[in-house]
Amino acid sequence: MTSAAKPIYVLNGPNLNLLGSREPDIYGAETLEEIESMLKAAAAGMGMSIDFRQSNQEGELVDWIQEAGARGRGLILNAAAYTHTSVAMGDAVAAIGVPVIEVHLSNIFAREEFRHHSYISAGAKGVICGFGALGYKMALNALDAAEATGPENG
Amino acid sequence: MTSAAKPIYVLNGPNLNLLGSREPDIYGAETLEEIESMLKAAAAGMGMSIDFRQSNQEGELVDWIQEAGARGRGLILNAAAYTHTSVAMGDAVAAIGVPVIEVHLSNIFAREEFRHHSYISAGAKGVICGFGALGYKMALNALDAAEATGPENG
Amino acid sequence: MTSAAKPIYVLNGPNLNLLGSREPDIYGAETLEEIESMLKAAAAGMGMSIDFRQSNQEGELVDWIQEAGARGRGLILNAAAYTHTSVAMGDAVAAIGVPVIEVHLSNIFAREEFRHHSYISAGAKGVICGFGALGYKMALNALDAAEATGPENG
Amino acid sequence: MTSAAKPIYVLNGPNLNLLGSREPDIYGAETLEEIESMLKAAAAGMGMSIDFRQSNQEGELVDWIQEAGARGRGLILNAAAYTHTSVAMGDAVAAIGVPVIEVHLSNIFAREEFRHHSYISAGAKGVICGFGALGYKMALNALDAAEATGPENG
Amino acid sequence: MTSAAKPIYVLNGPNLNLLGSREPDIYGAETLEEIESMLKAAAAGMGMSIDFRQSNQEGELVDWIQEAGARGRGLILNAAAYTHTSVAMGDAVAAIGVPVIEVHLSNIFAREEFRHHSYISAGAKGVICGFGALGYKMALNALDAAEATGPENG
Amino acid sequence: MTSAAKPIYVLNGPNLNLLGSREPDIYGAETLEEIESMLKAAAAGMGMSIDFRQSNQEGELVDWIQEAGARGRGLILNAAAYTHTSVAMGDAVAAIGVPVIEVHLSNIFAREEFRHHSYISAGAKGVICGFGALGYKMALNALDAAEATGPENG
Amino acid sequence: MTSAAKPIYVLNGPNLNLLGSREPDIYGAETLEEIESMLKAAAAGMGMSIDFRQSNQEGELVDWIQEAGARGRGLILNAAAYTHTSVAMGDAVAAIGVPVIEVHLSNIFAREEFRHHSYISAGAKGVICGFGALGYKMALNALDAAEATGPENG
Amino acid sequence: MTSAAKPIYVLNGPNLNLLGSREPDIYGAETLEEIESMLKAAAAGMGMSIDFRQSNQEGELVDWIQEAGARGRGLILNAAAYTHTSVAMGDAVAAIGVPVIEVHLSNIFAREEFRHHSYISAGAKGVICGFGALGYKMALNALDAAEATGPENG
Amino acid sequence: MTSAAKPIYVLNGPNLNLLGSREPDIYGAETLEEIESMLKAAAAGMGMSIDFRQSNQEGELVDWIQEAGARGRGLILNAAAYTHTSVAMGDAVAAIGVPVIEVHLSNIFAREEFRHHSYISAGAKGVICGFGALGYKMALNALDAAEATGPENG
Amino acid sequence: MTSAAKPIYVLNGPNLNLLGSREPDIYGAETLEEIESMLKAAAAGMGMSIDFRQSNQEGELVDWIQEAGARGRGLILNAAAYTHTSVAMGDAVAAIGVPVIEVHLSNIFAREEFRHHSYISAGAKGVICGFGALGYKMALNALDAAEATGPENG
Amino acid sequence: MTSAAKPIYVLNGPNLNLLGSREPDIYGAETLEEIESMLKAAAAGMGMSIDFRQSNQEGELVDWIQEAGARGRGLILNAAAYTHTSVAMGDAVAAIGVPVIEVHLSNIFAREEFRHHSYISAGAKGVICGFGALGYKMALNALDAAEATGPENG
Amino acid sequence: MTSAAKPIYVLNGPNLNLLGSREPDIYGAETLEEIESMLKAAAAGMGMSIDFRQSNQEGELVDWIQEAGARGRGLILNAAAYTHTSVAMGDAVAAIGVPVIEVHLSNIFAREEFRHHSYISAGAKGVICGFGALGYKMALNALDAAEATGPENG
Repeated sequence: MTSAAKPIYVLNGPNLNLLGSREPDIYGAETLEEIESMLKAAAAGMGMSIDFRQSNQEGELVDWIQEAGARGRGLILNAAAYTHTSVAMGDAVAAIGVPVIEVHLSNIFAREEFRHHSYISAGAKGVICGFGALGYKMALNALDAAEATGPENG
Repeated sequence: MTSAAKPIYVLNGPNLNLLGSREPDIYGAETLEEIESMLKAAAAGMGMSIDFRQSNQEGELVDWIQEAGARGRGLILNAAAYTHTSVAMGDAVAAIGVPVIEVHLSNIFAREEFRHHSYISAGAKGVICGFGALGYKMALNALDAAEATGPENG
Repeated sequence: MTSAAKPIYVLNGPNLNLLGSREPDIYGAETLEEIESMLKAAAAGMGMSIDFRQSNQEGELVDWIQEAGARGRGLILNAAAYTHTSVAMGDAVAAIGVPVIEVHLSNIFAREEFRHHSYISAGAKGVICGFGALGYKMALNALDAAEATGPENG
Repeated sequence: MTSAAKPIYVLNGPNLNLLGSREPDIYGAETLEEIESMLKAAAAGMGMSIDFRQSNQEGELVDWIQEAGARGRGLILNAAAYTHTSVAMGDAVAAIGVPVIEVHLSNIFAREEFRHHSYISAGAKGVICGFGALGYKMALNALDAAEATGPENG
Repeated sequence: MTSAAKPIYVLNGPNLNLLGSREPDIYGAETLEEIESMLKAAAAGMGMSIDFRQSNQEGELVDWIQEAGARGRGLILNAAAYTHTSVAMGDAVAAIGVPVIEVHLSNIFAREEFRHHSYISAGAKGVICGFGALGYKMALNALDAAEATGPENG
Repeated sequence: MTSAAKPIYVLNGPNLNLLGSREPDIYGAETLEEIESMLKAAAAGMGMSIDFRQSNQEGELVDWIQEAGARGRGLILNAAAYTHTSVAMGDAVAAIGVPVIEVHLSNIFAREEFRHHSYISAGAKGVICGFGALGYKMALNALDAAEATGPENG
Repeated sequence: MTSAAKPIYVLNGPNLNLLGSREPDIYGAETLEEIESMLKAAAAGMGMSIDFRQSNQEGELVDWIQEAGARGRGLILNAAAYTHTSVAMGDAVAAIGVPVIEVHLSNIFAREEFRHHSYISAGAKGVICGFGALGYKMALNALDAAEATGPENG
Repeated sequence: MTSAAKPIYVLNGPNLNLLGSREPDIYGAETLEEIESMLKAAAAGMGMSIDFRQSNQEGELVDWIQEAGARGRGLILNAAAYTHTSVAMGDAVAAIGVPVIEVHLSNIFAREEFRHHSYISAGAKGVICGFGALGYKMALNALDAAEATGPENG
Repeated sequence: MTSAAKPIYVLNGPNLNLLGSREPDIYGAETLEEIESMLKAAAAGMGMSIDFRQSNQEGELVDWIQEAGARGRGLILNAAAYTHTSVAMGDAVAAIGVPVIEVHLSNIFAREEFRHHSYISAGAKGVICGFGALGYKMALNALDAAEATGPENG
Repeated sequence: MTSAAKPIYVLNGPNLNLLGSREPDIYGAETLEEIESMLKAAAAGMGMSIDFRQSNQEGELVDWIQEAGARGRGLILNAAAYTHTSVAMGDAVAAIGVPVIEVHLSNIFAREEFRHHSYISAGAKGVICGFGALGYKMALNALDAAEATGPENG
Repeated sequence: MTSAAKPIYVLNGPNLNLLGSREPDIYGAETLEEIESMLKAAAAGMGMSIDFRQSNQEGELVDWIQEAGARGRGLILNAAAYTHTSVAMGDAVAAIGVPVIEVHLSNIFAREEFRHHSYISAGAKGVICGFGALGYKMALNALDAAEATGPENG
Repeated sequence: MTSAAKPIYVLNGPNLNLLGSREPDIYGAETLEEIESMLKAAAAGMGMSIDFRQSNQEGELVDWIQEAGARGRGLILNAAAYTHTSVAMGDAVAAIGVPVIEVHLSNIFAREEFRHHSYISAGAKGVICGFGALGYKMALNALDAAEATGPENG
């Protein structure tokens, strides 16, 4: 159902544009631009393309998730703070037909209680958290492997 | 602090010995032996060795986690049902000095409410769930990458 | 207080632009455009006009609710996912002086627990859910009847 | 599956016989008899007949819901206080094969917390609340429309 | 508003017909008939009449509460087990215009947790519990005193 | 204390009169009449008689529980939906002196959360659920065995 | 065990010294002095004496409850706000041997949720609330009656 | 699917080896050996064999449940304290293909709140509790009857 | 209603007498005496006088709140630990007629969960927290401004 | 660290543009423009400049909070309804280096329960609520004072 | 830091003055005076002195805890009922620099649920409960041992 | 009932074998072997013997608790992580006849919320926590003292 010509969408939620300067002991020292470059290089090596975006707007992220469903081959989603509050993004994830992988830089389960619940997870294929920027690359590999072996249950 | 000669421990909790026959729509069709073979091959290719075990005994798993801390280079832990009930295993994970990666075959966040809480996560470096057998390989890569780049926050 | 020249605002929340393709067993096969056409025809037959909009943006919906209060004759609001999370939209509904009717396509009380609570309901005149596209028309009739009989308590 | 010769059952729960005198600022000034007359006239104009009843007895209401399932064409149910406490009525609604519409005169979501939960809703086709006596007529129209278009999901 | 010719209704809920034999260490050794006789004698001495009834039926009790509102001078209500589950009886108490006094033989606050909540109390003038049969007489005196001094806040 | 001449009461709660037609995948295909016949035959073979009844009325069931206490030798009680809401029936069970066995056709613990709590259980000798019509016969045997061996703690 | 020469203690908690001026729509227009006079007159007529006190100090009230146990014949306790927070006063009530009656001027069950729980009730013989100053007199009568009939269960 | 040659497994959880001496007012005076003998005799009379075991080890019980699935004809499981804490045993019960009946000697619903929840029940065919040693025999009969009539829903 | 001759009461709750030495990283290095001097100087400059007190006694603080209502022009209240437990002080605040401003030195919302609830707030005009000793001065200014502009809603 | 040339950001959340017309008994009669003018005048008198904005968009407010961190000297934030739901804004507040003061016009602790929790507070220096427009000015003074005395703990 | 000349404070909370007569099956038959004598003798034998006090006043206990911090060598605190309700005493314990040991005569964890939480424990060095008067002596030994070995973590 | 020839059992739960190396700031620097030696020396001085064991296995600990009941004179139990999850160990403690003292090295009440609940406490004579290795010796003294004075309530 997915075509190799379609990009992988990589969508980043609120405050991730601050990466590198924001609480580096939690989120690491890499900037979002560095993650984007690393990930695009990795994807290119795998014959895939990446559409990498960030927004602080919940609604714009909903728009993009829908767009990923219509035009993308898969979605890597770091919803950041909206992970814990956005039924709208969870509904969008559930509504689209392409596989979605939820990524978090930090180990959200080692943080505040309110960060342990995700409205995204139930509709995602899988969750990766705590590996910093590497988590994005792990998600890319997982999407690639999933395509190779066909649909699988979540 | 870890030496390449030390193995990666891969510990599997209760009922994972039934893999392949047990509810394959949730856990997939691969047996635990197949996962072990796949993972050992992958590790060999990376110059690492694997100590792969399964037990239905909470206490034996606590023993092994301690052993991984004393003799291992890292720990990949699929605690299965004990994930949600074992303070003892969570304490063991917190007590040892090697990095621990929590893995689940299924997306536990898309299942029953009582499977959404983990006593392991807070002490783990990261969590990977929903990717079936691939998740173990992702964890192996993540341990490898972590060693390459040195300690990082969880 | 309301003048016949003023339109009825019909505001639709996140992901409703996907209607027809998104989980049709829950939301029905009609597209949002079809609902708009049906509703405009019905309104025309009743001598009323409709201002029909959709947005995935919580803040834009707040803007429009305020606008409905300033320029509209009544408001039919399907807040979709924001129903359950938006205090801001609930505050806007409470702040305006025109009657608001809350509509949902599906029976939200037969779905997940978190969809049973609405921040909109307390400030609305009434709630209609479970009737698909027909629910919008029922809301239109109810607004019309309310105007005929004057203010009534909610 | 339903025949035009079968009546629509309209069942009213405890204390609704007091309508008109009981807290008119919440429930309106119309008596239950007036609602019955209005509704029968409306039904007659649509070629339908109404079997309109009220009881303060939970068990009698369960009997009547079962009867509506056996002999009726549809059921409009204002369970009043039993809405919030009667698993038995909820089970009866779930057990019968005709469409059920839950109606409340007042907007129960703008009232006490314990009135926000309904044991009826999960088994009903839809819910209408806050429109006073008009709500019954809206329910009648909705049943009529549902029959015209055939079964639809709830 | 109340006339001396009207009786005081004394309504008793489920299982109170067993008094005297049922768990006498909780409910005392007096039968309900003995309480009725004692209370009628007391009322006669105060120039009042009593309409004393018991039912195991929630709906019949709702009927009688409504009747007390229409034909009575006041209501002494020992709703027994329905105290803790009947929104319908609570609604009836709130709907009528005569003063209602809630009575319990035992001290319900020294018993199981689920007996600490009452749906009756919010609409009652006052609550008397723990005094056995004497509680009924205390309620009678309180109704008498309330009439002497006119309406008072609850 | 019980005499062989006294019947075993078998009381069935709301909607059990629909058995056979109501959700047969949950409640089985046997009608309540068939269960009654099967049970009476079994009792006859054991020299016991059965008084078998069904009601949708909570209060009538309370009456019958009391009657079972006064005139019966034991009580088999399937309170159906009232299991989860009726303090009145739980009080009646606690008030009577004959052994009570709680029976459910389906495994209520594998169903909705609100069906996991019973107001009956604390006063019953034991609970049997999930065995369909056979559960009634198991209860009969258990009552018979209990009489043979004398009182035992619950 | 109590002697007629011993007084009835009547202890009043925080802010009751403001009676008459404090929120008279809740607490009535009578001052605490007027209640004291009324109650002393009533007691004198019954051959009893009253020791009537008020304090805003939780610990002083604990002292006085203990004193009532040592030197009094009974205790009428309006703990006011401490009702809901004082384990210490509840422990004192449970520790003494004379009967304690809990009194509240207003119907605390018709007020804020946090006023529905009492640490006093479990150790009291009974509770009287909602009757204003009359409640004290009712409590006096109840103590008098209890002495006449000897100990009774609470 | 099951063969008559296969045994019924009867597995007993922690502390059941103390039966007879441990709190006999709760658990009865019979020892576990006596129950085993009684049950084997009963099974022999029905042409069935019993594999009867006890362990204090959660993991050993998981092993045995798996073994019952592989080599047994059915499983009677008294998980004792692990009933309330073992997701691992609940997962094992859900993973195996033979019918499982949950048995408890005492009526767990008349005991502490934490004994009211079972991780076993959802995967079991049915639950029997409160009948002491007789409960095992009832379970045996139920397994026998289930085999006679073929698969049935739980 | 307030006269310039009346003082502003400034009441300080338990352990505030330790200021300066007690956990200075939370409460700052200023002593309570220094705060008193600073505040009196500020008040003098505004033509107001201050009655500044501290007590560890809940009841004494209730006495003083009442006194502030009778003799003061306004009340600045730092209830410290009693903020979270004292219904009695909350009732006193609600009972008096002068404006009350709740002050906390630290940002209580950034501390333990149990410090996030205040029994004082609902009856106060406003809340100021997190500004150390400056908060008292801010409260003084706010009282001054409120008097200048007349009564305002809280 | 902050320079006098940088402005104080004053950011206002959803529906605050309706001030003056929206529920004036809660929010006062001043418009947001009037507050802006008042505040700018006050700032000018203190040698500070103000960047005053309002938005109904959660994401735009996140953008502006980040901007305040980059270009501002301090932030006065009235997040209105987003206070209670926006983890994203709370994260932004925690991410920036300039002092943030949370302001509310009304006393949110005297309103609905869901308005008592703030995602902003934990990261703010302090909270001011209930003082209407004056609260903004109090915040301005507090920022000014904080700069004068250097960093202080929150 | 502590000097041998300083006394050990032993502070006892509400109702402990009743020891010996109050519920001796819970609190033992020894009076508080006997405990004081026993403890002073023991202390003398260890070269320590004791300052032993009891109060029913929360605030007086706060005063004394502060005094123990200023003049004592350690504190043995049996806060009795205030254990469960006094944030003020917990704050005082946290504020002082000498080691505090929490003692309870009874095993509070085998009693009512509300006695399982302590506001004191988090700031105490350790907790001893269930040993009656001996617990005080154990605490004395523990303080003595702690001084011998120097500071240790709690 | 206990004989001096019987040993005191000292049972240690999961991860306590790591003492000395595991999080020494929480658990201290002493190894478990050092504690064993210290305790055996102390016991010898008191004419008692010690049977000191550690296990990571919940079931083995249950076995040993039973053994302590059969062959021991008393039990000192540090259940470590199983304290908070093991109903099985709690049941074993309740089932045996010898006194049990619960010991924890750290002050569990100053740690994570889930460590505040113990399944052991209700059946233990008493609890000692926060005193490190000394706690074991305190428990030994308490057992010795208890034997000297005969049975006492907990």
